[in-house]
Amino acid sequence: MVAPLDEPAMASARQLQDRLTKPRCALGRLEDLSIQLAGITGVCPPPVPTPAAVCVFAADHGVVAQGVTPWPQEVTAQMAANIAGGGAAISVLARQHGCSLNVIDVGIAGDVSDLPGIEHRKVRAGTADLSVGAAMTADECDACIEIGRDVARRAIDAGARLLVTGEMGIGNTTASAAIIAALTGVSVDRCTGRGTGIDDAMLSHKVDIITGALGRLDKSATPIDVLADVGGLEIAALAGLCIEAAMQRVPVLVDGVISLAALLVADRMVPGVARYAIAGHRSSEPGATVVLETLGLRPLVELDMRLGEGSGAATALPIVVSAALLIGQMATFDGAGVTDKAP
Amino acid sequence: MVAPLDEPAMASARQLQDRLTKPRCALGRLEDLSIQLAGITGVCPPPVPTPAAVCVFAADHGVVAQGVTPWPQEVTAQMAANIAGGGAAISVLARQHGCSLNVIDVGIAGDVSDLPGIEHRKVRAGTADLSVGAAMTADECDACIEIGRDVARRAIDAGARLLVTGEMGIGNTTASAAIIAALTGVSVDRCTGRGTGIDDAMLSHKVDIITGALGRLDKSATPIDVLADVGGLEIAALAGLCIEAAMQRVPVLVDGVISLAALLVADRMVPGVARYAIAGHRSSEPGATVVLETLGLRPLVELDMRLGEGSGAATALPIVVSAALLIGQMATFDGAGVTDKAP
Repeated sequence: MVAPLDEPAMASARQLQDRLTKPRCALGRLEDLSIQLAGITGVCPPPVPTPAAVCVFAADHGVVAQGVTPWPQEVTAQMAANIAGGGAAISVLARQHGCSLNVIDVGIAGDVSDLPGIEHRKVRAGTADLSVGAAMTADECDACIEIGRDVARRAIDAGARLLVTGEMGIGNTTASAAIIAALTGVSVDRCTGRGTGIDDAMLSHKVDIITGALGRLDKSATPIDVLADVGGLEIAALAGLCIEAAMQRVPVLVDGVISLAALLVADRMVPGVARYAIAGHRSSEPGATVVLETLGLRPLVELDMRLGEGSGAATALPIVVSAALLIGQMATFDGAGVTDKAP
Repeated sequence: MVAPLDEPAMASARQLQDRLTKPRCALGRLEDLSIQLAGITGVCPPPVPTPAAVCVFAADHGVVAQGVTPWPQEVTAQMAANIAGGGAAISVLARQHGCSLNVIDVGIAGDVSDLPGIEHRKVRAGTADLSVGAAMTADECDACIEIGRDVARRAIDAGARLLVTGEMGIGNTTASAAIIAALTGVSVDRCTGRGTGIDDAMLSHKVDIITGALGRLDKSATPIDVLADVGGLEIAALAGLCIEAAMQRVPVLVDGVISLAALLVADRMVPGVARYAIAGHRSSEPGATVVLETLGLRPLVELDMRLGEGSGAATALPIVVSAALLIGQMATFDGAGVTDKAP
């Protein structure tokens, strides 16, 4: 169970916003965000959410055997190495924004224990093919959730005041769409997109694969059952990260469709987790919008990105920082000797 | 005359983007932005546009005598002081992003020569009431344009690699709407908004005032005639800033409706200036969207801000920096040993 947002802190933030030297509500969504940050942290003005920690969980997906992506599975390990090595988009953005960058292997296929800069916590070497049977066991799913919680806990203990979700896993838009369709009841074709670039035939095949897998799930399936059956190891870890951050009252800046699938599971497992989440970027994947609407979230930016890794969320991070700085540092009408408008 | 964007640099940027370790086009608008930056600067990868200089021009508007805003005129001087003193929204954002912040009085009403931190280059103490006659003379308009160019030149000489437009002037959404309607031919009611918060009656009155003023302009009015007749001193300075930046091949990050009115004039005076502009934030003012559509610009963020000062543009600044850092620092498929997708 997650505590509700702190109402007194939010009321104080609303009142403070109306005293700052600007027309009322003129900072638009930055004001809403400052109020949410006050509610999350229970402090007004809310603390500036820096430093932030980007947490990228990497894992493979057995369903790639079904031809749901044009990218070879080896790219998961290669890109995990590239992210840790500083050459990926998220590496550049984390440096720009002064974030720590944590890359965690929870399920890359094959032995990658020699990859430097990666925390090796592999639960299994990729999920099983979800088109054939459960992607993972309940125990494996629990283990990933615990790793996610542990990574969040350590990042917060090390000083992180905001967590940014990221992932790497060839095939993981398939698992995400399956989770989203299963938990929202929205049709599979409305939850499924082109991932990192597939054609019409492959998209149609991807929808068929997901539809087939969901046929195994009966009405009694819990969110964690869904996660284990059609999800992914990195998605389970991200769900754990979201839960732990909410429990510790630390905001989570959420990336695209994979992170949103994880947040949806987390919020269904522990109601209220989504109130601690800020949507960073509107992914081009249709499933992302399904989750955003379900959870009542509106992303801060919309830049037609479809990369993952946490890159969309990281791009939006300075806006969250701005929201906290503005409410904390702007002068008041009284303090600055500025005349308020005629009543 | 402004040079066209550098086509070879843009072609190089497009090719480089396709070699970076991500699916093609997966960075969406950040890729487009990197290509524009290459075209503006003529270099690929484009230089990182830091440090940036925020230039806030302040001036008063005689038309406030007609009751087009609930804010008293003295607020222009008070807010100019607040901006220079560090307490305004743009002050906070400029600090966050490491920008220099230049506040220039080109026409604040009354004597404010004792205000510290402000460059005093007053051309006249506020415009004349545009509902009665021309807001300023052609010479005064030219003087403001030259000040804007001079401020841009000095900022660039001092090391600025990007300029952010800002303004402060009670009543200036009225002048901006008048310019936009006059130069685009779009009806006054579609160009006029509620500024920093007016009711239906005041909005209707504002439309009538603008419509009346535009009746003076005949078909032969040049862009600079329009600017002098129904514009503002700070708007003329901003037009000059946009022109100088484009001539020096330095990107300009443009704020809301007042800055966009200035950019529109600048682009009509010197065709091609708008190609050097990046729209930061979509203002809530309808006239802003009219200019954006006319110039083919799409803002980077849309956060329901309606403050001015350059605050919307400044909020978007880190995204422009991200675009340059990503194309400049990401690894290539070859360099990082990452397998490209199946053809």
